[in-house]
Amino acid sequence: MNVNGNPYRSIWYDHEGDTVKIIDQTVLPHHFEIKTINSITAMAEAIRVMRVRGAPLIGVAAAFGLYLALRDDSDNKGLSKAEAIEYLKGTRPTAINLAWAMAAADKILDTLPPSGHAAAALQFALDLADEDVKTCEAIGEHGCDVLDRLWRSKSDQSAPLNVLTHCNAGWLATVDWGTALSVLYKAQARGIPLHVWVGETRPRNQGAFLTTWELHQQGIPHTLIADNTGGHLMQQGLVDVCLVGSDRTTASGDVCNKIGTYLKALAAFDNDIPFYVALPVSTIDFNIHDGLTEIPIEQRDSSEVLSISGLDEAGELRTISLTHPEVIAGNYGFDVTPARLVTGLITEKGLCTTDKESIAKLRLT
Amino acid sequence: MNVNGNPYRSIWYDHEGDTVKIIDQTVLPHHFEIKTINSITAMAEAIRVMRVRGAPLIGVAAAFGLYLALRDDSDNKGLSKAEAIEYLKGTRPTAINLAWAMAAADKILDTLPPSGHAAAALQFALDLADEDVKTCEAIGEHGCDVLDRLWRSKSDQSAPLNVLTHCNAGWLATVDWGTALSVLYKAQARGIPLHVWVGETRPRNQGAFLTTWELHQQGIPHTLIADNTGGHLMQQGLVDVCLVGSDRTTASGDVCNKIGTYLKALAAFDNDIPFYVALPVSTIDFNIHDGLTEIPIEQRDSSEVLSISGLDEAGELRTISLTHPEVIAGNYGFDVTPARLVTGLITEKGLCTTDKESIAKLRLT
Repeated sequence: MNVNGNPYRSIWYDHEGDTVKIIDQTVLPHHFEIKTINSITAMAEAIRVMRVRGAPLIGVAAAFGLYLALRDDSDNKGLSKAEAIEYLKGTRPTAINLAWAMAAADKILDTLPPSGHAAAALQFALDLADEDVKTCEAIGEHGCDVLDRLWRSKSDQSAPLNVLTHCNAGWLATVDWGTALSVLYKAQARGIPLHVWVGETRPRNQGAFLTTWELHQQGIPHTLIADNTGGHLMQQGLVDVCLVGSDRTTASGDVCNKIGTYLKALAAFDNDIPFYVALPVSTIDFNIHDGLTEIPIEQRDSSEVLSISGLDEAGELRTISLTHPEVIAGNYGFDVTPARLVTGLITEKGLCTTDKESIAKLRLT
Repeated sequence: MNVNGNPYRSIWYDHEGDTVKIIDQTVLPHHFEIKTINSITAMAEAIRVMRVRGAPLIGVAAAFGLYLALRDDSDNKGLSKAEAIEYLKGTRPTAINLAWAMAAADKILDTLPPSGHAAAALQFALDLADEDVKTCEAIGEHGCDVLDRLWRSKSDQSAPLNVLTHCNAGWLATVDWGTALSVLYKAQARGIPLHVWVGETRPRNQGAFLTTWELHQQGIPHTLIADNTGGHLMQQGLVDVCLVGSDRTTASGDVCNKIGTYLKALAAFDNDIPFYVALPVSTIDFNIHDGLTEIPIEQRDSSEVLSISGLDEAGELRTISLTHPEVIAGNYGFDVTPARLVTGLITEKGLCTTDKESIAKLRLT
């Protein structure tokens, strides 16, 4: 998508320098900085501290990280393939795309002699990135049909369709287009008038920092709200549809996504508002059924709750402490929305209800 | 309650200087500052910018503000009694205690000649403050019985009772003791082991700034969480009871409280966890029945969402901007939790279920 009018992906391979480039998402929206990643350790750090984040993107980032490891292992001094894969998988536990990408790469590499591993890993990462872009565009098109129906069913079609989203499921969370926000970008192109309620998404504020920046860049009207606000807006008829992404969805349709998603889904259900989840099929973990017991929920450092960064009066990026120094904070990264609260899954293969049979068909087609 | 071991109220009259003193809650937890309030305009400012906040406290603060207005109006140069009351009522629209205190003061003053108004207003404010302390202690005792039952019903009584609270319904929200937190202080005194999950309560962070400070001062174990986290904790069996305050509760039991309360109540209901609201009877608006349509929801300045204050590396209190400059934010101060989601109301008159008949009895007894 565009940044100040110029097209970008969130991650790309620099052929000339044989390095990987990423947009450093930890300094957005205040600074737009491209960072060069030239080793597996640099990529692991980028994933861990969330310079790159979002389930689809960290799958692609890990694939590039595996390439960098295998490239640097040509003299067998670095990590082995298996070690590199385990190291990358350990960076973030909840999103399944990362493990999925590593398993897919491993399967291809196992058919090749070690001398061909680095080149094949690079090709895999490049293909995965391109595939992700196509997938996200397809998610956007299918989701757009859903929004179109909702918009046409509104009594006043001059008023915008009010969409509530949580976290950042935009192009920054993927290679391009996004998942939930791809739907909005496609809807905008089709002429559906939109207004988006953006939950700030504490503690890492991906909504406040990234989603508002994305929507501003693409010219989609939006209003930032504290995460506490979604329920009130739904009670007052100010939300037509909820639309979020997912970090892992079970074969039974339980949706693991950014912490707080479950609360918004409960409010949508209570107010009879459709709640859609946009995700690539690679985010579905077909091996598990019970999201509440089978998905590991990442616990991150308490400093993410206790301090925050922003611009001071002089325009300098600065981190401040929010609480008195003795406070202990809990920082759970994700929660699980039971399938019963989800109206539908919007995938690159089309719309799907959250029942085992429909989800199983996604795997086969 | 104690601050560094010394007993304080959140507001008091300084006989010597004929002024009102408040703890300035806008600089907590970083600084503990006493502010002198010596005019109705200073009191109105303190209520509006939330130097004093919390439904019971702003009722008492407004009563002192009315005294200051009438004292300064002895030569009829200032606001009239009616003007002063309207001015104070206009500072914050949602909490009913403020309007209730003004109506009660007006009723008393109307029986007296104007020359006696100032003295009577001061006595009313002093009595209201003392009454509030007694009320909050009684709320604490009644609520303590509820927690005691829940604790005894736990399979493992060596583990603490896990309480989730939202915003600050502590002694800082009242004159002393608090509403929801009074229950915890009384439970602590009775030897019930507690652990409190404190939602940070964006955007004004009363949980992060005030509730953690209060609990730390009184030595009650607690963990700060992002507001998004409550649902996940409840799903995982980490919450035994939810306990919050209220800014206005209808005659039918709909509870208006800090924005985000409704979302936690939905999660408690979904996970079969008791959800209690602690409040003085003065917070009940017996004139209205439908919280969703009849309670005005305060909308505050968007700057409260877009910027935040804390300590920088040098220990200086500093405000930073969180988003890119073009972001528009919505800032709704409260939401309404329907009576069907509330297990019970804990008042100074005892425990009450959220049905019209039980609530009506509170008015009569």
